[in-house]
Formats: sequence, structure tokens, C-alpha cells
Amino acid sequence: MRLRNKPWAQDKLNEYPQYVPTDPTKYKGKWQSRFEKEQPIHIEVGSGKGQFIMNMAKAHPEINYIAVEIQTSVIVSILEKQIEEALPNVQILHGDGSDLSEYFAPAEISLLYLNFSDPWPKTRHAKRRLTSPLFLKQYEGILPENGEVHFKTDNQGLFEHSLESMSEYGMYFKQVWLDLHKSDFEGNVMTEYEEKFSSRGNRIYRLEAVFRSNK
Amino acid sequence: MRLRNKPWAQDKLNEYPQYVPTDPTKYKGKWQSRFEKEQPIHIEVGSGKGQFIMNMAKAHPEINYIAVEIQTSVIVSILEKQIEEALPNVQILHGDGSDLSEYFAPAEISLLYLNFSDPWPKTRHAKRRLTSPLFLKQYEGILPENGEVHFKTDNQGLFEHSLESMSEYGMYFKQVWLDLHKSDFEGNVMTEYEEKFSSRGNRIYRLEAVFRSNK
Repeated sequence: MRLRNKPWAQDKLNEYPQYVPTDPTKYKGKWQSRFEKEQPIHIEVGSGKGQFIMNMAKAHPEINYIAVEIQTSVIVSILEKQIEEALPNVQILHGDGSDLSEYFAPAEISLLYLNFSDPWPKTRHAKRRLTSPLFLKQYEGILPENGEVHFKTDNQGLFEHSLESMSEYGMYFKQVWLDLHKSDFEGNVMTEYEEKFSSRGNRIYRLEAVFRSNK
Repeated sequence: MRLRNKPWAQDKLNEYPQYVPTDPTKYKGKWQSRFEKEQPIHIEVGSGKGQFIMNMAKAHPEINYIAVEIQTSVIVSILEKQIEEALPNVQILHGDGSDLSEYFAPAEISLLYLNFSDPWPKTRHAKRRLTSPLFLKQYEGILPENGEVHFKTDNQGLFEHSLESMSEYGMYFKQVWLDLHKSDFEGNVMTEYEEKFSSRGNRIYRLEAVFRSNK
């Protein structure tokens, strides 16, 4: 994503601690207290400008959602949406996907989404891909037994890598879609990227991967 | 595959027991005795007319190959090729992929190929797909620890099913290609189907799946 410099962004985040906790590690094990209702928490790691998570939250009021995003100049767009919508089931976490175990207690999160993550195509950057083993270990640590990661991307190389990396880690695939928009999948909520790239004719790939409990 | 009735086919197979053993179960654990050299044995399950296995055998004289095919009217085409070529590293097994443990001893086979297997698209026929669990169990029984299955197809639904089925079984994917002919994969040997369907613009999918030893 091309980042614009937004020097005012951090100030804006600081203005809305009810949506973006200033120190998210303080809520480890206590995220339910930040929502109106106690109900399963789903997170998206790398939420970008937040179209997916805001629309999911509107479609699924029975779920609490947390958007995790590291880029200050991007996460501020989620906040702007939330200022407007004030959804009771959305929280925003300004932090790093590799630090999830500092933000969440084991099994605190019921489901984890990854959408159009940075492909990091160079082999020497493979460790930065959000489906590489060190990240999977973080996800496993905050999900319940048989916890699931739902991932979609238009990037063929990242999807191939993810099928390899996740299966090598010991996960299995409950379902795989090699052309999501031509499938019978229902209830797809599109991200900003997904709208842009699918309109160019790119295939969208999707998978639902499950951690094995008997590892 | 559209099958032509070839009433003479079984007679022809009977004429060449040096290439097509009359009772393949007799060679369980003894297949090396049917080859000129003792070297790793690779099999293809569902060899069709045999273009893949014959060209692999020419390209890799250091490997012994066995073509497994159930259809009499199809396997006879492999035999015709072998009558002409007389390759010392090719044998032909007229039998069923679901009976592999009757033909081969544990670990007798080093590598197993599946190419453009029948997709059996209807859910009620899922058990007939060559990457469904009962078949995987057969393959596991004749391969060594960490044995591999190399599979390619142009059928999106079958490839999706295979990613699910093989990972659920406990296999992992050493490598996945979502568009083989546009990748840097070297040494690809095409099947008859592959030539036909890729020339129509179909993507070819490929994977290398590994059985876990600690199951």
C-alpha cells in the first residue's frame, strides 16, 4: 500500500481511546470488557483501511471484531469509519501481528482473518509473510483448540506459499477456493483491494485453515 | 476418457507377460526382479495411454517405472508403446488403484504419481477420487516414511478437494503450483490430457504432498 504521510494521524488515534486503546497490552485477557456485549471475538490482522471489518461488524452484530493494524497512517482510516458508525462491536488495535500474544490471552480470540496481506515476494523476506511459521505460532497461541484462520488474497505466489507453510506447520484446510468470485461461497465481504483487483479480472483465492489440537 | 470397445485388448495383454504380469499380486515385494536394474521404483496410478510414464522412463533411466491402469482398452495403448520401445525400466500393471497393497509391499514404491485423474465431480462420488482418504491410505501403505505423492490436474474442483483431503489426512505440501505452465518448474513431462487442455488455455495445477512419519 502506498502510504501517505499523515503527521496528524497519531494525535487523532490518541483522541479516541474508547475505540483505540492507548496501551493494548493492558487488555490482554480482558477485551470483552471493551465491548457492549460478551460474545465471540474475531480479529483481522492487517486491516488496512477497514472496509472488511466494518462491513463484517455490520453484517454480524453477534460477533465482536478487533481490527489489528500497524501502520498509523492507514489505521486512522478505520478510526474515521468507526467515528462515523460508532459500532458497539468494533475495536481497533494499533499494533504488530507478530506481538499478538502480548495483546491477547490464550483462546481469547475465536477466529482470525487475513485479507490481501503483503505478499513479500522475495525469498529473503519470506519470514515477513503473515502465513509464515512465526506468525502461525502467534495465531495458535491466541486461538482455541482447532482454531481457524480464514485467508484470502489475489496473489498467487502468496497463496501457494501459504498452502505450503500452513500444511507444513500442521494445519489442515477445511476448505479451499481457487476462484472465489466464481464459486458458490455466500456472504463474501470484500476488502478495498479485493474490489480493485477482482475488477481487473484477477482471481481471488481463499482458504479456511484449522490448527490441529494434538500437535 | 471415452472408451472404445476393444475386444482383442485382453488377448494382447496376455501375449506380453514380460511387460504385463498376468497375476500382479505374485510380485508383491519382488517387483525389482522384473527390471533390468535394481533402482527406485516410481508408479503412476491411472496411467491412461501412457505418454507420461513412457517419456519419464526415457528421461530417467535411473528410475524403474510401473504404470497402473485398470481399463483394459486404455492400458493396451501403453503396451503398444512398450512393444515398440522395449524400455528396460517400464512395467505395466493391469489393476485397481484401490488394491495397491495387494500388489506392493510396504515401502516397495519410492514415489507415486497421479496425473489428470478422473474428477468425479458429484459429491456422492467423492470416494472414487484418487486423492480421497481410502486411496491415500493405500498409497501410504506402499511408500516409505515421508513418502511423496506428486499430482497434477487441470480440474479446479479436484485440486481444491485434494488440498483439503490430503491435508486433513495429515499430509503436508512441499510445493504447490497454481499455474504450472507459467512457473519456473523444470523437466515437466506432459500427459496426453495436459497437452490437450493446456492448449485450450486451461491452467495446470500441481502439488507435491508428503506423508508424515509420526502419524
